[in-house]
Amino acid sequence: MDRVIINEVGLRDGLQNQPRLLGTTDKLQLARALQVAGLHHLELTSFVSPRAVPQMVDADAFSQAMFAAGAPAQDYAALVPNLRGYERARQHPYRELSAVVASTDSFNRRNINKDLESALQGVLALIERAHVDGLRLRVHLSGAMGCPYDGPQPVRHILALSERLLGAGADELVISDTIGAGHPRLARALLLPLLESFPADRLGLHLHDTRGLALPIALAGLELGLRRFDASVGGLGGCPYAPGATGNVATESLVYLCEREGLHTGVDLEALQEGIVVAGQLTGQELGAPVFRWMRSRTQSCN
Amino acid sequence: MDRVIINEVGLRDGLQNQPRLLGTTDKLQLARALQVAGLHHLELTSFVSPRAVPQMVDADAFSQAMFAAGAPAQDYAALVPNLRGYERARQHPYRELSAVVASTDSFNRRNINKDLESALQGVLALIERAHVDGLRLRVHLSGAMGCPYDGPQPVRHILALSERLLGAGADELVISDTIGAGHPRLARALLLPLLESFPADRLGLHLHDTRGLALPIALAGLELGLRRFDASVGGLGGCPYAPGATGNVATESLVYLCEREGLHTGVDLEALQEGIVVAGQLTGQELGAPVFRWMRSRTQSCN
Repeated sequence: MDRVIINEVGLRDGLQNQPRLLGTTDKLQLARALQVAGLHHLELTSFVSPRAVPQMVDADAFSQAMFAAGAPAQDYAALVPNLRGYERARQHPYRELSAVVASTDSFNRRNINKDLESALQGVLALIERAHVDGLRLRVHLSGAMGCPYDGPQPVRHILALSERLLGAGADELVISDTIGAGHPRLARALLLPLLESFPADRLGLHLHDTRGLALPIALAGLELGLRRFDASVGGLGGCPYAPGATGNVATESLVYLCEREGLHTGVDLEALQEGIVVAGQLTGQELGAPVFRWMRSRTQSCN
Repeated sequence: MDRVIINEVGLRDGLQNQPRLLGTTDKLQLARALQVAGLHHLELTSFVSPRAVPQMVDADAFSQAMFAAGAPAQDYAALVPNLRGYERARQHPYRELSAVVASTDSFNRRNINKDLESALQGVLALIERAHVDGLRLRVHLSGAMGCPYDGPQPVRHILALSERLLGAGADELVISDTIGAGHPRLARALLLPLLESFPADRLGLHLHDTRGLALPIALAGLELGLRRFDASVGGLGGCPYAPGATGNVATESLVYLCEREGLHTGVDLEALQEGIVVAGQLTGQELGAPVFRWMRSRTQSCN
């Protein structure tokens, strides 16, 4: 059975820029709806400063509540920006954590006030530490298909960064199209050389649908054998104040594409509708990709 | 130069179900905006009964006005449902016409009150007649990826119909996913066998984005060498009263995908924004694919 792993990041990437603060019980309600739909790989939160990301103020309380509910620990992940965040995350039985490094000096400076090389060193230290502790570490390479400050980056630069991270033992390198600047040809240009040296299950795609090419990029990835994708319920995410800053590729879109390609996600699209509705109610955003609107209407045009 | 032909069908398929009737001058304004953006292949209208499609009541007047404006005649096409429509279209200097046959008895009965075989015979007669008159005839196979009444159809059935039409000399067979039920795997299953017998330039794709897979299907088509696609400005189309009945794949999405794949459409996306705005104003619909919203905002997310 050819299985695709959908890493649901709605609770983390989807919420982090939402202006309406969700309580822990809200998040538990959303997580439950996602799990009922078969989404078992959930990135729950990030262990960042609540001053930087107020939505993550309950990172500990929410993690605790989720683990207390008794789901298998390997199903949950959390993002750790640095060693301090890592230590906080280690207070919980996470078996997998995510780290981030951005593709340029500018982007890393904006994110964590470090240049690229220092940011990279920080992540390399996290990889080492995680492996000492027996944890799986995913590394997101942010802005891998374009930097919000410096624009497009040379393919060889992204490849060199990717190879350093994978070579240093990152269990999964997630090519992250943070601003939705990518396209299938660029995805192939990045993935094909990496697949010469590393197996497909060490590579993932994190896509934003800013310009509408998230699904074509995902298809290009699937065709190359990639089976790990981040996605966000209903397309939750982005900055609601900035119309051009859109969310992750919608989980329902990605699930629908994968299933139609003959791949298995384990996600029940019918049941996922409830998760999209809950996410919309909690955030006050209008959510849902075309396949969701289609499922809600089931009206068919005839001409 | 690897060129993709975008057949803009907004004026025909995009408008035919719009409740607000556009006048001929409205249509001329929209056509002009599309041409300014480099869209030269325009399906202008259909020569149907105005009782059936009130929006096409000015098929003659609009055709006349467009040809009077002096554009090369090979840039314009019109849809003819039958021989009567064909005779009307022949009053104008069209060099290309489109015909339609649906994939099932049910769908043909609903459209033209004929069973599939009779509908097919009608189109075969149109092909013969068009060739006697020296015209190019495109044939849309409606519901080729699913029938609105009978659901999915066996691939071998669609292939048999396609082969009869191409074998009879249809200059282009347009695989039409009328209700947006298709997916890349189905597109490949239909296109690969046809491409064994017919060149890619005799095949086209007409996609609706009902469930969000129009662009992934288009990508699968591009990868197989297809270079002819219908599209509608801003995604205009569908039935505004039925939320699930969405329009054609948006021209701007398809252009953006093609250009990013390194193919040339001749369309200027910046200039096309005006066409999307005009189409929205004239129809009162909110139009525009993600790449349009992105162009309008140029705001970038950063996390």
